[in-house]
Amino acid sequence: MSDIPESVQLGNHVVIEENVTIGENVVIGHHTTILAGTRIGDNVTIGCSCVLGVKPAVNKRMRKSSKINTQLIIDSEVKIGHLVSIYAGTNIENNVFIGDHASIRENVSIGKESVVGRAAIVELNTIIGKSCTIQTQAYVTGDTTLEDDVFIGPCVSMSNDKYMGAKQYSLKGPYLKTGVKVGNNASLLPGIVIGSNTVIGAGAVVTKNMDDDIVAAGVPAKKLT
Amino acid sequence: MSDIPESVQLGNHVVIEENVTIGENVVIGHHTTILAGTRIGDNVTIGCSCVLGVKPAVNKRMRKSSKINTQLIIDSEVKIGHLVSIYAGTNIENNVFIGDHASIRENVSIGKESVVGRAAIVELNTIIGKSCTIQTQAYVTGDTTLEDDVFIGPCVSMSNDKYMGAKQYSLKGPYLKTGVKVGNNASLLPGIVIGSNTVIGAGAVVTKNMDDDIVAAGVPAKKLT
Amino acid sequence: MSDIPESVQLGNHVVIEENVTIGENVVIGHHTTILAGTRIGDNVTIGCSCVLGVKPAVNKRMRKSSKINTQLIIDSEVKIGHLVSIYAGTNIENNVFIGDHASIRENVSIGKESVVGRAAIVELNTIIGKSCTIQTQAYVTGDTTLEDDVFIGPCVSMSNDKYMGAKQYSLKGPYLKTGVKVGNNASLLPGIVIGSNTVIGAGAVVTKNMDDDIVAAGVPAKKLT
Repeated sequence: MSDIPESVQLGNHVVIEENVTIGENVVIGHHTTILAGTRIGDNVTIGCSCVLGVKPAVNKRMRKSSKINTQLIIDSEVKIGHLVSIYAGTNIENNVFIGDHASIRENVSIGKESVVGRAAIVELNTIIGKSCTIQTQAYVTGDTTLEDDVFIGPCVSMSNDKYMGAKQYSLKGPYLKTGVKVGNNASLLPGIVIGSNTVIGAGAVVTKNMDDDIVAAGVPAKKLT
Repeated sequence: MSDIPESVQLGNHVVIEENVTIGENVVIGHHTTILAGTRIGDNVTIGCSCVLGVKPAVNKRMRKSSKINTQLIIDSEVKIGHLVSIYAGTNIENNVFIGDHASIRENVSIGKESVVGRAAIVELNTIIGKSCTIQTQAYVTGDTTLEDDVFIGPCVSMSNDKYMGAKQYSLKGPYLKTGVKVGNNASLLPGIVIGSNTVIGAGAVVTKNMDDDIVAAGVPAKKLT
Repeated sequence: MSDIPESVQLGNHVVIEENVTIGENVVIGHHTTILAGTRIGDNVTIGCSCVLGVKPAVNKRMRKSSKINTQLIIDSEVKIGHLVSIYAGTNIENNVFIGDHASIRENVSIGKESVVGRAAIVELNTIIGKSCTIQTQAYVTGDTTLEDDVFIGPCVSMSNDKYMGAKQYSLKGPYLKTGVKVGNNASLLPGIVIGSNTVIGAGAVVTKNMDDDIVAAGVPAKKLT
């Protein structure tokens, strides 16, 4: 068990492994597990039945992350919901909000004041800027970049594997520039780039790069204006 | 710890906070947390590792609910699966079934005998009528109304924010009248109204209001018959 | 409590009910529940806050499984993530990987070396062959067959109820032959058959049977090549 400041409020049956550091005024809900090597800043709140600081596991047919840090770093004022899982090797900046049932993999960075919605998933090796919103059940695949102020609607889907497991391929997720907005349940294909402030309509399938400052929709997505 | 009738079956490591009322013959699974202010009727069954009675939390960039009741009310004969989260200020009527991994926010009402599927999500300020079916992984956004006997297929997506966070806007989800059926993975846009007994095809994107008693499909959805 | 070999590593607050068998060198994370009748092979690893061996529950408006075995059988070398639920009456073969937040129902079989992704859901009475990949948040409905080497992209949706609850109907999910690949967020309708090695594009809506060895995309999906 690690050293815990007196100002920390721990729920019942909380498990805190060795080599965990916890800041002042942190609140941790019942049944939550903080695994070895996790660093939690001041005034962080964590819900019930979370699992934080997970070390990656793979089977034979899955790739390994290239560079695994051993620490999950959660900066001050972060709020984490209930039943959330977050991996080691990820960095979550100040004032980020992470909804219930969300899952965030290793080697991810999430910029300050961003929101990761309820049951949203962020895969490995992904960079999320400041003040982004990733809504409920959205899927941010691995090897993806969201610059600042990006809005990902509910249930948006992304992929990063052009050959669907059939070829050795350098996996590459979408790259969304500052201010992009993606409507609910849109699908983004591997490696596409969406220009600054472009808006993608609900249910669109984005198969090609999109210019800055346009509105696009449809299957496949085409420029409307 | 609250008073608990002798007929209640509690799993191991169950946490029940103060000011909780629990009816006769309730079953609560291992590792489940019942937070303060929750009221549970007779013959309710609750799975393992659930978190019930959550108080809303927000960050700077998220809106607050206007009117928060402090109680989660679960009527008699309700069945709740495993790893479920439900918020305070919500009312779940008799004989409702809530699947594993589902999440239901505050200020929601769910009418009797409705089903909320596995990993389905219901956001805040939403009204669900009687005998509705919300299938697996479906997303019912905030400020939505489903009248009675509505069927929402698996993975259906909805949104309630026309401007995707860009403007101050009175958020408004879809309004689905009695007997509407929505096929799997369809997308419904903010504020649309779907008329009674209308059927929406799988994968459709519904961008406009739909009349009663029609079948519509496609992107964008158009009347077929 | 069941007999547990000395080589097993148990986390804190693990619950193991009666009539559970656990192989050598098994690792079980904190707060995990293993329900009665579960059989776990050698060298299996299970994360934190899982619920394994769930007995099905239904309400009046839901069908019951025809044939329920009482055991969940997990073969050797299987890896199970965190916050996972798996039902009794299911068989998971050697070297399968099951991601965090996934849920697998009763009467399912999963062939060796297959991967069930993060937050993916597999419904009841479904057969998954060897070396299949079901990616993150994908939904494999009930009464579905995936032969060997099938790839299901992230957020793929399926349904098995042609009448959306309106008629008595023999439910039938899709049938995907060996080597099929389905792009992210595609929708598959009830009972469709997809031929061997066929590729379905991202966001496609598959409403009819598809031949072997083709590429199809669009809404509704049509043959491209």
